[in-house]
Amino acid sequence: MPVISLITDFGIRSGFVGVMKGVIYRIAPEAKIVDISHSIAAQDIREGAFALWRAYSFFPPSTIHVYVVDPGVGTQRRALAAHIGENYFVGPDNGLLTPIIEDAEGRGRKIEFVKLDNPRFFLPKVSHTFHGRDIFAPVAAHLASGVALAELGTPVSDPVRVQVPKPEKTLDGWRAHVTLIDTFGNLTTDLPFSTLQNRTDILLRLRGAEIHGIAESYGHKRPGDLVAVVDSEDFVEIAVVNGSAVEKLGAKVGDDVDVIIPSP
Amino acid sequence: MPVISLITDFGIRSGFVGVMKGVIYRIAPEAKIVDISHSIAAQDIREGAFALWRAYSFFPPSTIHVYVVDPGVGTQRRALAAHIGENYFVGPDNGLLTPIIEDAEGRGRKIEFVKLDNPRFFLPKVSHTFHGRDIFAPVAAHLASGVALAELGTPVSDPVRVQVPKPEKTLDGWRAHVTLIDTFGNLTTDLPFSTLQNRTDILLRLRGAEIHGIAESYGHKRPGDLVAVVDSEDFVEIAVVNGSAVEKLGAKVGDDVDVIIPSP
Amino acid sequence: MPVISLITDFGIRSGFVGVMKGVIYRIAPEAKIVDISHSIAAQDIREGAFALWRAYSFFPPSTIHVYVVDPGVGTQRRALAAHIGENYFVGPDNGLLTPIIEDAEGRGRKIEFVKLDNPRFFLPKVSHTFHGRDIFAPVAAHLASGVALAELGTPVSDPVRVQVPKPEKTLDGWRAHVTLIDTFGNLTTDLPFSTLQNRTDILLRLRGAEIHGIAESYGHKRPGDLVAVVDSEDFVEIAVVNGSAVEKLGAKVGDDVDVIIPSP
Repeated sequence: MPVISLITDFGIRSGFVGVMKGVIYRIAPEAKIVDISHSIAAQDIREGAFALWRAYSFFPPSTIHVYVVDPGVGTQRRALAAHIGENYFVGPDNGLLTPIIEDAEGRGRKIEFVKLDNPRFFLPKVSHTFHGRDIFAPVAAHLASGVALAELGTPVSDPVRVQVPKPEKTLDGWRAHVTLIDTFGNLTTDLPFSTLQNRTDILLRLRGAEIHGIAESYGHKRPGDLVAVVDSEDFVEIAVVNGSAVEKLGAKVGDDVDVIIPSP
Repeated sequence: MPVISLITDFGIRSGFVGVMKGVIYRIAPEAKIVDISHSIAAQDIREGAFALWRAYSFFPPSTIHVYVVDPGVGTQRRALAAHIGENYFVGPDNGLLTPIIEDAEGRGRKIEFVKLDNPRFFLPKVSHTFHGRDIFAPVAAHLASGVALAELGTPVSDPVRVQVPKPEKTLDGWRAHVTLIDTFGNLTTDLPFSTLQNRTDILLRLRGAEIHGIAESYGHKRPGDLVAVVDSEDFVEIAVVNGSAVEKLGAKVGDDVDVIIPSP
Repeated sequence: MPVISLITDFGIRSGFVGVMKGVIYRIAPEAKIVDISHSIAAQDIREGAFALWRAYSFFPPSTIHVYVVDPGVGTQRRALAAHIGENYFVGPDNGLLTPIIEDAEGRGRKIEFVKLDNPRFFLPKVSHTFHGRDIFAPVAAHLASGVALAELGTPVSDPVRVQVPKPEKTLDGWRAHVTLIDTFGNLTTDLPFSTLQNRTDILLRLRGAEIHGIAESYGHKRPGDLVAVVDSEDFVEIAVVNGSAVEKLGAKVGDDVDVIIPSP
């Protein structure tokens, strides 16, 4: 039985996530359920998009990723299930999958979408405010139990997409952007280290601060130092050793990070 | 092997919940454990009562719900296990199950309680401060492994009950009450929409604010609007589109919500 | 298949923990994964040490405890796996296991360590910043799947140790120390109640406050009272009934607690 992952903006206080798991176990008693995060900022599709995109490829093949960041719940926005590469995805049609779709397109992987319009796989009563429980959890559980994607609804090929930040080429390097802030206050950017072709002698500027060079890891500098490192998904990251870059710099998601590559 | 759900006020920092799961797996290695919430306000039996009541019916039949909001731990308060309808419950005798008992009574379902007085199903050493680990987790695991309710202790029929808020009839409608505040800052009330017999042209008043009519869902109004909707358990809910009603109104659990039904 | 427990300082927002579980399920699809805590204070090895030490013995035999509080990630600090008594441990070599090692030494239990230097059991690509995902999760999953400790790396016998606070004998009793603060604001000390040989008529002094005697449990005093009780692991604990001792006293981990035993 495949893994079902959950990523939502429901928080952990209300019990909404537990209810989704109860619904899944009613239909697929042998499912393995993994929480990715339930602390995505409320209705922040972009944060959800980055978090799921960074996580999904580490899961087993055939994992079903359920995402519920859903400001349009109860309106005409479509509900979708997708088969992208070796993974499945279930959630609202709101662009959260954009970076995963772009990845798959770049690698020539198969992409299939269906609009969830077969209520046989929903809970008997569908509310206007909690499709995570009434539609997405039961559909994921049916997928896990062996129902084919094609049975779940009508094929569609135009999922909503959102603009995903990308680094821009400048005269002397790149303008990158802060994409995620983690628990430690580290700032991930959208600049892949591979773009720098192994140059570590660069200069970074953000929020009036300058960082010289890319360090091998946090522990190679002294506590309190502002450093740039290569993060665990190969992106350039800004951190404070044993501290918080977000606190030190007052940085925000979307901030510009200028990367200057000195002439050789 | 049935699902065991956990709802506590232990928070997620201390490791108490993980220890309860370790104890369960020692006794019932095949149990499936689901967290409902561990962020119930400290020792707030009423919040725990509403959260479990809203969640329990979505779980598979025979689920064992363990609740540990337990200000009386270590005193003479009894420990209970119950079979109510198609579910089991294990926890302190403090009234947290009141709405679930009332529901079952209203539907004529079978209700059985035992006082946990058979230490054979506890951990060998029982502390004065952590019965979640020493009594409730092992009892739930033994239940999951097939031990009958009657073996766990002596039948009792007088579980503690707490007063559960209920809407009051007024001259021109209802006086409802805020019962829960969720992660998004939405305010759930105790007024079932069915009470309004499909009237959506009502007026709501709380904390000096007025809301006209019940909207189909959040997305049918503009961001920032204060709206009333029907929530996922069919109760009237007050929300701010893409915002927080609790912040906008300074509302609290227990607040009055006056619902005025205009003459037809 | 054994239980794998996880204790980290990753927080619950970022998705790092979910990714570790995805990696584990790729390798060991039947693993049972339990979270102990992901809210250890960032890079606080001592807090992690106490939290894991208090929890581990309640888990089933052969549980694999993965701990990732790892300020030295990406430097020359070693990665370890250990077999201590009936449990396994996987994580960085930073002293977090010290109290568990001392316990095992005191009881004459078998202790084996290996340095993780066999990349066959890592993810194919190892980052400089996320060994939880790239080394510790896959190694734990391979252990769970039946790989022997000796296959994972080279035996070592000198794991890093940290100083663990211990109560000091004084003229009229003990100087104890606050070791942990839980969700309720209770203060655990390092003084085992057994040290007091059943004397409950003691005087405790901390932060200018005095507490007379040890109560049987919280519920035996009135709400708001400052009390001392014996906690669930047999240590002397300071609490406020239905309140928070940490707020009332402004206490911190490491604070002195003077315990005066009156002459008989």
